[in-house]
Amino acid sequence: MAQPIGRHFLQIPGPTNVPEQVLRAMSAPTIDHRGPEFAALTLDLLEAVKPVFGTTGPVVIYPSSGTGAWEAALVNTLSPGDRVLAFETGHFATLWREMAESLGLEVEFVPGDWRHGADPEAAAAHLAADTDHAIKAVCVVHNETSTGATSRIAEIRRALDDAGHPALLLVDTISSLGSVDYRHDEWGVDVTVSCSQKGLMLPPGLGFNAVSDKALRAAESAGLRRSYWDWRPVLEANRRGFFHSTPATNLLYGLREALTMLDEEGLPQVYARHLRHAEATRAAVRGWGLEILCLDEREHSPALTAVVMPEGHDADKLRELILEKFNMSLGAGLGKLKGTVFRIGHLGHFNDVALAGTLSGVQMGLELAGVPVDDSGVAAALRVLTGKAGA
Amino acid sequence: MAQPIGRHFLQIPGPTNVPEQVLRAMSAPTIDHRGPEFAALTLDLLEAVKPVFGTTGPVVIYPSSGTGAWEAALVNTLSPGDRVLAFETGHFATLWREMAESLGLEVEFVPGDWRHGADPEAAAAHLAADTDHAIKAVCVVHNETSTGATSRIAEIRRALDDAGHPALLLVDTISSLGSVDYRHDEWGVDVTVSCSQKGLMLPPGLGFNAVSDKALRAAESAGLRRSYWDWRPVLEANRRGFFHSTPATNLLYGLREALTMLDEEGLPQVYARHLRHAEATRAAVRGWGLEILCLDEREHSPALTAVVMPEGHDADKLRELILEKFNMSLGAGLGKLKGTVFRIGHLGHFNDVALAGTLSGVQMGLELAGVPVDDSGVAAALRVLTGKAGA
Amino acid sequence: MAQPIGRHFLQIPGPTNVPEQVLRAMSAPTIDHRGPEFAALTLDLLEAVKPVFGTTGPVVIYPSSGTGAWEAALVNTLSPGDRVLAFETGHFATLWREMAESLGLEVEFVPGDWRHGADPEAAAAHLAADTDHAIKAVCVVHNETSTGATSRIAEIRRALDDAGHPALLLVDTISSLGSVDYRHDEWGVDVTVSCSQKGLMLPPGLGFNAVSDKALRAAESAGLRRSYWDWRPVLEANRRGFFHSTPATNLLYGLREALTMLDEEGLPQVYARHLRHAEATRAAVRGWGLEILCLDEREHSPALTAVVMPEGHDADKLRELILEKFNMSLGAGLGKLKGTVFRIGHLGHFNDVALAGTLSGVQMGLELAGVPVDDSGVAAALRVLTGKAGA
Amino acid sequence: MAQPIGRHFLQIPGPTNVPEQVLRAMSAPTIDHRGPEFAALTLDLLEAVKPVFGTTGPVVIYPSSGTGAWEAALVNTLSPGDRVLAFETGHFATLWREMAESLGLEVEFVPGDWRHGADPEAAAAHLAADTDHAIKAVCVVHNETSTGATSRIAEIRRALDDAGHPALLLVDTISSLGSVDYRHDEWGVDVTVSCSQKGLMLPPGLGFNAVSDKALRAAESAGLRRSYWDWRPVLEANRRGFFHSTPATNLLYGLREALTMLDEEGLPQVYARHLRHAEATRAAVRGWGLEILCLDEREHSPALTAVVMPEGHDADKLRELILEKFNMSLGAGLGKLKGTVFRIGHLGHFNDVALAGTLSGVQMGLELAGVPVDDSGVAAALRVLTGKAGA
Repeated sequence: MAQPIGRHFLQIPGPTNVPEQVLRAMSAPTIDHRGPEFAALTLDLLEAVKPVFGTTGPVVIYPSSGTGAWEAALVNTLSPGDRVLAFETGHFATLWREMAESLGLEVEFVPGDWRHGADPEAAAAHLAADTDHAIKAVCVVHNETSTGATSRIAEIRRALDDAGHPALLLVDTISSLGSVDYRHDEWGVDVTVSCSQKGLMLPPGLGFNAVSDKALRAAESAGLRRSYWDWRPVLEANRRGFFHSTPATNLLYGLREALTMLDEEGLPQVYARHLRHAEATRAAVRGWGLEILCLDEREHSPALTAVVMPEGHDADKLRELILEKFNMSLGAGLGKLKGTVFRIGHLGHFNDVALAGTLSGVQMGLELAGVPVDDSGVAAALRVLTGKAGA
Repeated sequence: MAQPIGRHFLQIPGPTNVPEQVLRAMSAPTIDHRGPEFAALTLDLLEAVKPVFGTTGPVVIYPSSGTGAWEAALVNTLSPGDRVLAFETGHFATLWREMAESLGLEVEFVPGDWRHGADPEAAAAHLAADTDHAIKAVCVVHNETSTGATSRIAEIRRALDDAGHPALLLVDTISSLGSVDYRHDEWGVDVTVSCSQKGLMLPPGLGFNAVSDKALRAAESAGLRRSYWDWRPVLEANRRGFFHSTPATNLLYGLREALTMLDEEGLPQVYARHLRHAEATRAAVRGWGLEILCLDEREHSPALTAVVMPEGHDADKLRELILEKFNMSLGAGLGKLKGTVFRIGHLGHFNDVALAGTLSGVQMGLELAGVPVDDSGVAAALRVLTGKAGA
Repeated sequence: MAQPIGRHFLQIPGPTNVPEQVLRAMSAPTIDHRGPEFAALTLDLLEAVKPVFGTTGPVVIYPSSGTGAWEAALVNTLSPGDRVLAFETGHFATLWREMAESLGLEVEFVPGDWRHGADPEAAAAHLAADTDHAIKAVCVVHNETSTGATSRIAEIRRALDDAGHPALLLVDTISSLGSVDYRHDEWGVDVTVSCSQKGLMLPPGLGFNAVSDKALRAAESAGLRRSYWDWRPVLEANRRGFFHSTPATNLLYGLREALTMLDEEGLPQVYARHLRHAEATRAAVRGWGLEILCLDEREHSPALTAVVMPEGHDADKLRELILEKFNMSLGAGLGKLKGTVFRIGHLGHFNDVALAGTLSGVQMGLELAGVPVDDSGVAAALRVLTGKAGA
Repeated sequence: MAQPIGRHFLQIPGPTNVPEQVLRAMSAPTIDHRGPEFAALTLDLLEAVKPVFGTTGPVVIYPSSGTGAWEAALVNTLSPGDRVLAFETGHFATLWREMAESLGLEVEFVPGDWRHGADPEAAAAHLAADTDHAIKAVCVVHNETSTGATSRIAEIRRALDDAGHPALLLVDTISSLGSVDYRHDEWGVDVTVSCSQKGLMLPPGLGFNAVSDKALRAAESAGLRRSYWDWRPVLEANRRGFFHSTPATNLLYGLREALTMLDEEGLPQVYARHLRHAEATRAAVRGWGLEILCLDEREHSPALTAVVMPEGHDADKLRELILEKFNMSLGAGLGKLKGTVFRIGHLGHFNDVALAGTLSGVQMGLELAGVPVDDSGVAAALRVLTGKAGA
């Protein structure tokens, strides 16, 4: 098969398969971003986006990647030399730490094995030890896209509360938003960072910050220099339905459509679907006799599953074979996991038969790559999907 | 699941899943059908469409359904009261017969059990008996979309040749063209009837007639009244890159893209893919312990598989359940097969993982519908796809 | 300028500029034409299409060109050898006559000069003379696309009524439907023929027949052979939301969108807009000092204007120059008008500034082609548009 | 006219009318931004984008607005407290100054009247006075989108050279790139800032920095904190066809198409077209008897024309009327020009007839708004377009 045949299965943990109705919505003509039609769209969107963050507060939207939204969260709330507490949950947590350091912050980085979420007990210990409140912010990746481990944000919140610690709580929901139950307000998160190309089912190009009142207050005195990322002029312009600098209009069209789709399915149904698909995927991995990277049952990601390759087999070779033979993309092992792990994205615009196709492609790929696996993985997944697992 | 989630699996035997690049090609602005840009498109298309028919002769394109292309084949070549020989291979052969009668032709209809293709021996017998050559045309459905049985056109041709019979050979390739190896010229077919929405991967709206020299000569004296379907003014206008009446311009854009895709994959590869997918599908059906409608190993359709429901189970109820739970459409039993048969389309823009998803959806649907099946169907199909079947 | 720059101005009298929202609607994935989603679409569409025809009766939709819809009107209502009365209003009336003769009808063709609509007085005379009611149908082209003359259908109706003549009234609204006020029911039309690519703002590919009760009764006894065009099985299938043969699904998506657009503007507003644009166009033509083909003030088409080239100048050369220099297509002179007339389409998805651009392109083209014209045409048109003409 | 009729004329100076082929290209499915297909696209794009900047060096592409690209230019090359020389050419120059100050730079801001480009003589004077080379960068807006005055970058370069001044030259080409002849290399520009939604004919969402070797060297020692905007990891990843953070994939599809369109027309032809349209627009403005904001004949923008409203008339009321009556958007007066100026964009995907429509809409709007104008503006513009002006 020399060229891709049939529809591509984009089963990386984002960008996800963009629904055709979102792509069509995005192909409407660009309009005047200072005109009345645009203002109506913006005012509508800024409300419609809130439920997926679990907030009633403002959400700032940038033309940017998720990385940009990380930067926005930091520069709006912190000052040069500020200390932040972060957790080595994987590749992206590590990159966020590097960014913080580049921006002049000092990072207290709790080491991790890349197989767990952020440890609430470690958080509690670090916060308790910080008696003079040198830590100004706690940074957590909700869903580590590189490992498939989901951090328990509510428990991190509790650690802050129990310690009576005033640090801000900054959470990266890049690969969880719209796929995993998330509660910005209830969990007392101060800045929720996200982007468009995962659970929101859009192409990349939009970054988001959901912002608490406490974060807004912090922005008044934060000393890091900022202009593009400054929340204040954006929020000011948003009041009239506009943006401070030219917005990515056509992605906003797509966002409107995507939010409508999530609303029509119902967020609780969306989250339950992701949980069910994740469970079926793990059943398949266990059926193959392979190891799941994430080691804590409470922390398995609803959005993706990282699979450990057996010794002596290269995960990247497997992905290459699957791309070529089955026109399906899987996620690579990132950073120190390169070659030893592959990741199956099961988030976004997805359903049972697409998952079955995905897992079949992985199973066939493993067999063709000569990886010693049991061929009962797909059958195990189907039993989860029909509710007959364990029967 | 109250509303369709994820991408729909359109696994009826046509319309098939239209590739997004074809849909995008079709969404270009409509142009002047009498201008130079249109002429260039037409001249290119009329050549590019020939290989898929296996012809070097002309192909007439109509804004119509496949039914219209049937009518065109008849009214251009026959006269009121003419006798045609046809075969009861299933629902569509029966409809074509009714059309012929409506148009004033007399149909010698060889009875069939809807589980086989047209019988070349019966053809031979009827032709031999027709010593005064009252039969003016032999009408065969190449791939019976209602049953999944493919008629052996080369053997029908041989029957005509062996009998030295001058009848025209008219073949319906509605659900085979672009999916099943087909040779208009080599098999001496006089009119090949087809349409856009199956193996050509387009939406419905185009009908085709590939036309032999003998058919063109027949058109000179054919007595059936015709205007819209008349080949002659179309072919005359085609010479300069135009059409006799306004063409379905945007479908022609899509056709150009679809033909490019078929050419890039390579027609032999396209046909081999369909054969392999059909074999995998039959392995699944047998794995479930169900019966395939088509009874002759030589005649299993590469494009679709019709499955017989076990006594006491309603195929339409199953399809309804699968549509609701899995967002997948399957083909209904048509005519006298209503409720007792369902059809799996595995043609067009398709690949191994999409097939695996499709068969998984059918298997899960059967289980949820309480149909007594073995759950090893999908596994059997995957073994065919990985080349490990029979190992 | 070696290649087309900027957006093409498609100012032929159809196909017209398809709105981008219609093209986007058409690029949705094709669905199962036997499933519940399709049925809902069809039932909705078959109602929504009625107001534009001015009818409360059924409208039959075919995958076909408008030419096909002509054929459908004839073969459903007439018998071999039947006499029809028709009027030589121009090229399309002549083609319709040829079709009728090809189908075995006898045409009483009232001669015309291609500069007027059908003459109601001539109609009255022919009907009065037909004392034994040999004339079974009166065929009128409402808006002659080749000349820009609109026939007065209500007066033709009155001629039938005054003569107490039972002939059917068949009207071609191919280039008037959706642009010109039209009343199938009120005017007692029996079959209204139309298509998708003019005032309905769609690409070509759909043909329409609005059908009166009297026409339906005629269909019961009509002797012309028919199958594809037969109204009865279509109407029967329509009752449940389906079609007799596979419908052009994606064009139906576009039709839904186009009808919504017409409804949102309001049909009276749509018709008024076309009248205003036609008046502005005629002001431009007169400003240039050129002659309008249509000679009767009551019959100027709201949809297009045919302009007579001054002696010694070739209209096709002008159109070629305008296409090359200004990326704008104009309509050619058809049939005996070839080279001596060009046609400006001002129908469909259009507005004042697009008309101003169109007329500017024509004026600049005339000047560059060396046609002796006054350059005050555009200014005169603008005065009509601002309501300052005559001031 | 209660709702927009026909195609919208988006005649603001950006976002511009996005060609439908660009919108279609953008609606292709998002692909894996770490896969081989993406790498091929990137490597191709990064070369293809160079000619429009007039450079053979690297171009950095961000998911951002043009404002983000401004920030990138500053933070990659400068250190806190650095002095930059800038020119008050209008609203955007003023905003850029504010950004520089927010980021901790000191701005030497040459005052201006918002009716001229940056003054090369003033530049020379400031540079000569800066004997200790405190000025680290000279910031110029090539085409002031708020005024329609184009700065003479080559002369600013000469001022730097003549003074033997080592400052970097940073140029904003946001509304000139792809519309106005521009030469990053030849003019010794160090960072050229741009974005997607003007002459590049894309929706907003991409920011660009073309970067000289000198700028790259400056980046090694620049002290402003940066992460998202840091050129170095982007350029590093670009080498293999990837990006440092997730790129705006679908906008890159559009960029590929837009660059192909510019290349097919030919950049010299593109620039000549814009000059010609600007000249025709000025002829119209003079024909109306109105004043052009830009006062220097050498500095009239090829991309937009700002028009001064006569005393006692509100430009925003005019724009509102034109939007409502003619479905056309014009640019507002920004900052201190609010209400007294309106701007006509004539850049991007555009042609003579679209310009004629645009100017007709403005003329009709002026008349309907009761602004005392001569109605000969459109006619004057048409004479420029046909080459008969002055004849």
